[in-house]
Amino acid sequence: MKIVFLGTGSMQPTKERNVSSIYFNHESENILFDCGEGTQRQMRLKEISPTKITKIIVSHFHADHVLGLGGLLRTLEANEYNKTITIYGPKGVEKFVHNIIHSAYYGDSIKIKTIEIKPGIIINEEKFTVEAFQLDHSVPSFGFRLKEKDRRKINLEYLKKFELKQHPLLGELQKGKDIVWNDKKITAKKATNVVKGKIISIIFDTGYFNNIIKLAKDADLLISESTFSIEEKDKAREYKHLTAEDAAKIAKKSKAKKLILTHFSPRYKDISKLQKEAEKEFNSVECASDLMEINI
Amino acid sequence: MKIVFLGTGSMQPTKERNVSSIYFNHESENILFDCGEGTQRQMRLKEISPTKITKIIVSHFHADHVLGLGGLLRTLEANEYNKTITIYGPKGVEKFVHNIIHSAYYGDSIKIKTIEIKPGIIINEEKFTVEAFQLDHSVPSFGFRLKEKDRRKINLEYLKKFELKQHPLLGELQKGKDIVWNDKKITAKKATNVVKGKIISIIFDTGYFNNIIKLAKDADLLISESTFSIEEKDKAREYKHLTAEDAAKIAKKSKAKKLILTHFSPRYKDISKLQKEAEKEFNSVECASDLMEINI
Repeated sequence: MKIVFLGTGSMQPTKERNVSSIYFNHESENILFDCGEGTQRQMRLKEISPTKITKIIVSHFHADHVLGLGGLLRTLEANEYNKTITIYGPKGVEKFVHNIIHSAYYGDSIKIKTIEIKPGIIINEEKFTVEAFQLDHSVPSFGFRLKEKDRRKINLEYLKKFELKQHPLLGELQKGKDIVWNDKKITAKKATNVVKGKIISIIFDTGYFNNIIKLAKDADLLISESTFSIEEKDKAREYKHLTAEDAAKIAKKSKAKKLILTHFSPRYKDISKLQKEAEKEFNSVECASDLMEINI
Repeated sequence: MKIVFLGTGSMQPTKERNVSSIYFNHESENILFDCGEGTQRQMRLKEISPTKITKIIVSHFHADHVLGLGGLLRTLEANEYNKTITIYGPKGVEKFVHNIIHSAYYGDSIKIKTIEIKPGIIINEEKFTVEAFQLDHSVPSFGFRLKEKDRRKINLEYLKKFELKQHPLLGELQKGKDIVWNDKKITAKKATNVVKGKIISIIFDTGYFNNIIKLAKDADLLISESTFSIEEKDKAREYKHLTAEDAAKIAKKSKAKKLILTHFSPRYKDISKLQKEAEKEFNSVECASDLMEINI
């Protein structure tokens, strides 16, 4: 699984940071989480072709999370994107997307499907799932848990005594099915090792609440908004955002392995302060920067 | 008068060029011509504060010319911009702007006034005018002629014999009024020299037509779209755009002093080809680049 931070700022762009967008790639699947203004330019800078996008998930309809959608859809149209693009978003998604594509002259060749996000599994692909969790923000807002499905890795060492190497039957073992080879039964249990799927949790705009731990539980990677420093804790509470300390507490309580902070207020030129605040609570903290890439 | 090219590409952003926007400054007046997606970020890179903007003029409602409007308006709102922002645009401006500010959750504190552009003078300020010219594009599109008003410069040499230096009466002379000083009449005609106001003409998206010369007539600076090379002349005609050669012919016929090409198709990595095509027709050609600044 690959993650690219396309925009790591909040509210309005700065010289250093564009507004919210995270690109997720898993084999042929390319999902955009949020699409703030300027996201397609960030993709160009990172040499990610917009036409590779298979799905768009909008966490909530605040301007800094969605206003790049119109330009991206127009670019898909101009590049003869011939698939249906699915846009997931909270209540109102259909109306907002309608307004977005009526903000300028568009053709009518692009096929858009909008899906209103409800808590639970919203995407169930062959190799991974995306689960949505309701957050607590000033407008309906969601966080997401991306879970790679467990898979079986062939134990080639074990198969040596059966003299079985490359063969289509290995695929059956990987599916967890027992096979027969040279009149001998080979069980999937013995011939394969289960590799646990990785978990990436993403916390978008939200105030702190106890149940948020569930979203991040045992995540291999927790990406969390961290709009404010603890010095602006009152502002964080008022506007329903997290401080860096909040994000770190969530990482700690949920036993996440690694925490990446993002969605910083434009007021912070130097975010090392936020990193230090988080490090007091949790030992594996990194601050995202625009176009940063993580492979997991 | 100052011009900053905030975006010099067309259709979709590239690594090197953002989509259409030109910033114009004359003393306290700051006008944005077009506001493609990402314009506010370009302003940040050039250290132009969005709240300085006094008016926005949209040439036409193709996506690459307007989709930065939503983000900019949201930023004005967040920065407690307390003036009314006037947005000029072709037929449909009210509906398009309505859809733009309903593409996400907005507050209701920002005051917007939309004005439908008709050919003729659309802005008449103390020191300059903006005149709109209908262009020939696939949707209603306008070009603009910015004319600094002629002004009188005091002839200090001439005033020496009257022993008149710093005095409020000089202001009267500058307004073209005769004055009396130590019982002697001083005429504005003799005591001042008329300085002709400069003319900047901007040709936005259009196909070639003869009357376009009027828009650029005697311009000190002609800024022109130049989407295509002469090699794609058929495409230029089909999509109603200009080639670099077209722009240069307009500059020549209208007796403009200088031509700056902009709005290049993303297909051209190297635009020196377009510059050469234009130079065959006209001797003072420059190609715009993002964040380039011109003072006139």
